[in-house]
Amino acid sequence: MDERLRRQLEFILEIDKEKTIFRQTHLSGGGRAENDAEHAWHMAVMAWLLKDYAREEVDVARVMMMCLIHDIVEIDAGDTYAYDPEALKTQKAREDAAKERIFSMLPEDQKAELTALFEEFEAGETPEAKYAHSLDNLQPLLLNNSNDGADWKAHGVTARQVWGRQRGTRPGSEKLYEVTEAIIRGQIAKGNLPEE
Amino acid sequence: MDERLRRQLEFILEIDKEKTIFRQTHLSGGGRAENDAEHAWHMAVMAWLLKDYAREEVDVARVMMMCLIHDIVEIDAGDTYAYDPEALKTQKAREDAAKERIFSMLPEDQKAELTALFEEFEAGETPEAKYAHSLDNLQPLLLNNSNDGADWKAHGVTARQVWGRQRGTRPGSEKLYEVTEAIIRGQIAKGNLPEE
Repeated sequence: MDERLRRQLEFILEIDKEKTIFRQTHLSGGGRAENDAEHAWHMAVMAWLLKDYAREEVDVARVMMMCLIHDIVEIDAGDTYAYDPEALKTQKAREDAAKERIFSMLPEDQKAELTALFEEFEAGETPEAKYAHSLDNLQPLLLNNSNDGADWKAHGVTARQVWGRQRGTRPGSEKLYEVTEAIIRGQIAKGNLPEE
Repeated sequence: MDERLRRQLEFILEIDKEKTIFRQTHLSGGGRAENDAEHAWHMAVMAWLLKDYAREEVDVARVMMMCLIHDIVEIDAGDTYAYDPEALKTQKAREDAAKERIFSMLPEDQKAELTALFEEFEAGETPEAKYAHSLDNLQPLLLNNSNDGADWKAHGVTARQVWGRQRGTRPGSEKLYEVTEAIIRGQIAKGNLPEE
């Protein structure tokens, strides 16, 4: 087997580990915690189905791939909960080291390609990255909404915190931000999310 | 919220159930059984990384979406093991009913689009569908290879059966079929896969 293909297959086997990185979000129906691979799969399907709501025109293949790989660094760095200020402080250093190790398994050109796509997502400046962030926010919100805000309750999260996080949906999609607002207001009204 | 978006979000929540449909394949490192959403995620990443090996030029976004949704019918129909002749007899009827129910949740145009993409995969005739089948075969083979053929051993699967199934990789990719041959021969040589 040639070296290029050998490296690609080793990377593909390595990222299997993403299926064992669990998030704070739980599956709909009050199920178990969701893992990163499942979250990424769900986002990528959403990327295709909801693309007409992206604020600017997007290359949907690039959005889908961005969604599929945006959490790969968590294989080494672990999942950092969006409302954990201590973990957020060290997140970048942990994820940078992981990014270098994991993408270096690929052939040089694909290492560069995936690193660039990952960094584009992180920077959140292109139409594709903004839309992908909308999906990264909306996907767990839909699950948590279906579970009466159980994930927020488990962590004592307030509406103020959720508004802060979900604000990042708006640059990617006005329409999906309207859904976000409706969900948050609905959860507050149901008493599942305290204002402060 | 308008009707179109409401239907899209209900479909998106419905397919969350795909994360609870478990396959016969186990994660690398001898881990737990893999579920359909994880398998689809892995295939879609492979679709992007290995696209130069597709026998014909492919629209990678269509391949990725095909990979992401190709098992959605199993939400109702369950996973049918590739080496279970009894289950294979009823697979089509079970999956047809599921296809109608699940895709009907979407707006009409997207129901038609996803149904067509699903059926294109099933028919296996276009360059995209042939390549997606190569990935559908190779992904579990890589995991099982990393686990010394444990999934074959658990079901008493023979090399003859594996050759039969994996033959479907060749129309999509000569290069990936070479990898397939090397893996099968390696597993036979290790005594993990009896010839008959």
